[in-house]
Amino acid sequence: MGKVHVRDNAAKEKKTEFRLVRVKDTWKRKLGKKVNKNKVDCVSAAKIFETSTVKDTTWTVISPITFTYKVTETRGLLDPNSDTLLLGHITDPQHLEEIKALNKPLKRFVVVDQEVYKIYGAKITEYLEFHNVLYKILALPTTEENKSMEVALTILEEVNNFCLDRRTEPIIAIGGGVCLDIVGLAASLYRRRTPYIRVPTTLLSYIDASVGAKTGVNFANCKNKLGTYIPPTAAFLDLSFIQTLPRRHICNGVAEMLKMALMKHRGLFELLDKHGRMLLETKFQDAGSIYGQSSFQAASRATRIAITTMLEELAPNLWEDDLNRLVDFGHLISPALEMKVLPSLLHGEAVNIDMSYMVYVAQECGLLSEDEKQRIIRCMVGLELPVWHEEVTMELIQKSLQDRLKHSGGLVRMPLPVGLGQAEIFNTTSYEILHRAHEKWCGELSMSSHSSCDP
Amino acid sequence: MGKVHVRDNAAKEKKTEFRLVRVKDTWKRKLGKKVNKNKVDCVSAAKIFETSTVKDTTWTVISPITFTYKVTETRGLLDPNSDTLLLGHITDPQHLEEIKALNKPLKRFVVVDQEVYKIYGAKITEYLEFHNVLYKILALPTTEENKSMEVALTILEEVNNFCLDRRTEPIIAIGGGVCLDIVGLAASLYRRRTPYIRVPTTLLSYIDASVGAKTGVNFANCKNKLGTYIPPTAAFLDLSFIQTLPRRHICNGVAEMLKMALMKHRGLFELLDKHGRMLLETKFQDAGSIYGQSSFQAASRATRIAITTMLEELAPNLWEDDLNRLVDFGHLISPALEMKVLPSLLHGEAVNIDMSYMVYVAQECGLLSEDEKQRIIRCMVGLELPVWHEEVTMELIQKSLQDRLKHSGGLVRMPLPVGLGQAEIFNTTSYEILHRAHEKWCGELSMSSHSSCDP
Repeated sequence: MGKVHVRDNAAKEKKTEFRLVRVKDTWKRKLGKKVNKNKVDCVSAAKIFETSTVKDTTWTVISPITFTYKVTETRGLLDPNSDTLLLGHITDPQHLEEIKALNKPLKRFVVVDQEVYKIYGAKITEYLEFHNVLYKILALPTTEENKSMEVALTILEEVNNFCLDRRTEPIIAIGGGVCLDIVGLAASLYRRRTPYIRVPTTLLSYIDASVGAKTGVNFANCKNKLGTYIPPTAAFLDLSFIQTLPRRHICNGVAEMLKMALMKHRGLFELLDKHGRMLLETKFQDAGSIYGQSSFQAASRATRIAITTMLEELAPNLWEDDLNRLVDFGHLISPALEMKVLPSLLHGEAVNIDMSYMVYVAQECGLLSEDEKQRIIRCMVGLELPVWHEEVTMELIQKSLQDRLKHSGGLVRMPLPVGLGQAEIFNTTSYEILHRAHEKWCGELSMSSHSSCDP
Repeated sequence: MGKVHVRDNAAKEKKTEFRLVRVKDTWKRKLGKKVNKNKVDCVSAAKIFETSTVKDTTWTVISPITFTYKVTETRGLLDPNSDTLLLGHITDPQHLEEIKALNKPLKRFVVVDQEVYKIYGAKITEYLEFHNVLYKILALPTTEENKSMEVALTILEEVNNFCLDRRTEPIIAIGGGVCLDIVGLAASLYRRRTPYIRVPTTLLSYIDASVGAKTGVNFANCKNKLGTYIPPTAAFLDLSFIQTLPRRHICNGVAEMLKMALMKHRGLFELLDKHGRMLLETKFQDAGSIYGQSSFQAASRATRIAITTMLEELAPNLWEDDLNRLVDFGHLISPALEMKVLPSLLHGEAVNIDMSYMVYVAQECGLLSEDEKQRIIRCMVGLELPVWHEEVTMELIQKSLQDRLKHSGGLVRMPLPVGLGQAEIFNTTSYEILHRAHEKWCGELSMSSHSSCDP
C-alpha cells in the first residue's frame, strides 16, 4: 500500500448509542440504553451507533432479522384429505382459522421437476383440483446442467404472469435438490422475497436441501456460485416419494445420512451399519416388504436423526458466518471430483469417496483405530457406496485443500472423525500424513472399486 | 376449498423447546431454557421447537441473523491521503492493524457508472494506483433502461474472472441509485453474499439508496421487481461528487429530503424552506459561492438530518416486514406516474407530485391547515420541483391505491402529514375526500405546472 496518513485517533472519537422506539407511526432515536416502555408503542431490537471525528460522521446500524421456518415430516402429503401442502406453513392458529373461514379459493404456483411430474403430475393436479385451488403447474427439467439463472428467470416470468400475492401465496417446489435450489433462488428474488415451500422427492434432498436455507444456481461452470440464504417458509417431507427412486439414488441419499452419523451420532451409524441393506431393499417404505414394520421404524428413526443432527448444525449458523462446520465433512475434495467426472458420480457418491479418504486420514492421525476405520469402510461398501476413485490423486487433494484455505479465511478447517459418531475440526494436517493416508487408501481400496454403483 | 379433515387438535400435540449449545466443534440441542454456561463453549441465539402429533413431526427453526453496516459522511474520499474507500468498512481495529501490517497489495473490483467515469475515472484510477491496489474498473451505462438482471450477470462474469476473495475484498460501486442497486444485487448473489460498498454520486442516492438495504433490478417492465435486502458493508458519502450534478438532479434529491422533513422533522422543513434556493445555487458545496461557510453548514445539516431520520425508519424495519412505513410517503401514486411518463420525470420529481397531491388530501382531511398546505406547496415550488401533473388523474390515483391494497395486506396504509414535520398512517380515506382534494389540487396548481424542471 502507498503512504497513508494516520487515521483519526480513537481518543478523539465521540461515540453515541441510540435505541429505536416507535411512538404511533414514527420511529425515533433514543439516547442511551434505558427506555421508558410506558411512553412508547414499541422498542426495536435494532440499534444505531453514531461516531464523529473531525472529518467524518459514521452511523453504524445493527439490525437483527429473525428467520423462522418449519420442517415437517408428514405422510400422505398428496392425499386429498390432508391440507398440509396448502396451509401447513401457517404458524398462527388464528390466521389459519381466518383463512379457512374466508372459504376463498387459494392460489398456488407450483414448480415440479419434469421427471417427478411424469410420475406424480396427475396426483398433484387432482389434489389441487380437489381443494379448489387456482393453480399453475410448471414442469421443468431441473437437472444439474439446467441449474442456471436462465431457468430461474423462466420461473420468474411465469410467476409474474400468474400475479401472485407475495405475502400470502407461497411458491411450491416439488422435486430433488436442484429443483428446490432453483425455485428457492427465484422466490428469494421475487419482490425481494416471496415465501416458498420445499417438497423433496429424493432421499438426498429430504435430509439435506430441505432442511437448510441455501438456494442457488451454477454459474461460470461452478457449482452454486450464485444464490441466497433464504430458508423456505416450510419444508414438507413425505417418505412415500422415495419409493419411486432408483436404488442408486437411495444409496446417494444414505451417503449424506452417513455423514451426520460419522460426525455426530453413533446411534445413527450403528443403525445404518446394521439395517442399511434392509433400508435399501424397502426404499424407506412401510409396506410390501418381508421386513414388515421394523423396516419402517428403522427408516423413520434414520431420517429423524439425520434431520435433527443437521438442524443442530444449521440453525446456529444459517448464513454460514462460522466457517468451522462439521457438515462440510465429505465436501472438501468431492466438489472438484464431482465436477471433473460429471455426470458419472452422483453428489452423495462423490461425498462418500471424500469421506472414505478422510477416514484414512483420521486413522493415520491416530484419531480412529484400525478397527473403527475398517468398520466404517465395510459399512460404506454395505450401503453400496463407492469408497475409492482413481481421480482422487494427491494433486486433486492438494488443490482442493488450497482452494479451501483461500475461501475459509486462511485455515483448512478439516472435519475429521475422532471415534465413531464424534468429530472435531483440524487445521494442521501435514502433507506427510495426507500422503501416507492416500497410499494406504489406494493400496487397500483401489481393487474394491465401485462397480455396484455404476448406473 | 374442498372438504378437509380437522387438523390435529392442539391438545394432542407435544411441544418441546431446544436451545443450541456448542461443545468444542459440535452443536447440540439442549432441552429447556436453562443452560450451564460453564459446560459449553457457546450458546446460540437460535432455537428449535419440536412438535409431534400422531401423524407429523415438525421442527420450527428460529434463527436470528444480525446485519451490521456503516454509513459514513466523509470528505475527500478520492484524495490519495484518505484510506476510507479501501479500509473504512473494517470495524475491528485489530483486524485493521493486521491488514496494514501485512503490507500486501489490496484487491478491489470497482463498478462505476459510465457518465461518472467520464468525470472521475482518472481520479479513481490515480487513487487506486497510489494505494498500490490490484484493481479492475468496470464502467457501465447504469441507466433505468439498463437496470436489468442481464447487466447484473455481466458484472458477475467479470467479478468471477477477477477471482476475488468473497470474505475480505468488497466490491465497490460508484454511481447513482441504479448503479448502487444493480451492484448490490450482484454482490448479494455472488457466493451467496459478497460484501460491497456504496459510493453515491447523486444527491438522491446520497440520502436514499445508500442508507438502506435494498438492492434490485427492473423485471417484466416493473420497477425493482427482483432484488434482495442485503445492506452494503459500508456506504461512503462524499458531498463533493454533487458539484458536477446538473441543477435539476439536485432538485431531484432535495425532493426525498423534503419527504423526510414533512414526515418527521420540522427543523429540516424550515431549513429547506429558508435555505433551499441557496443549496441549489451552491450545489451543497462549501467553496466558491457568495454565501461562504453558511451554505455548507446548511448543506451538512440538511444531509445529516435526512440521513438520520431515514436510518431511524429503516433500521427497525430493514426487511420491510412492517408494512406501515412513513418512508412510503410520495411513493403511492408516483411509481405508476413515473413508469407512465418515463423518461420525462425524474424519480424525485414524480415523488414530489405525489406528495403535493397528498398534502391536499391531508388538508381536506383536516390534518393540515390551509396555511400549512400553502406553505408546503410554496416551498416545493421554491425548490424548483413540479407540484402537479396532468397524468395524475382520479383513475391513476384509484388504480395505484388498489395496487397498494393488494400488496399491503389489504390496507392502504397512507402516510399523511399531520402538521409540519409530523405524520401518521391512515387506512380510511374516502373516495369523496380523494376526489375533492384532486379537484382543488388541479384547480389551484394546474396553471403553475412544472416548466422549471424541463430538461
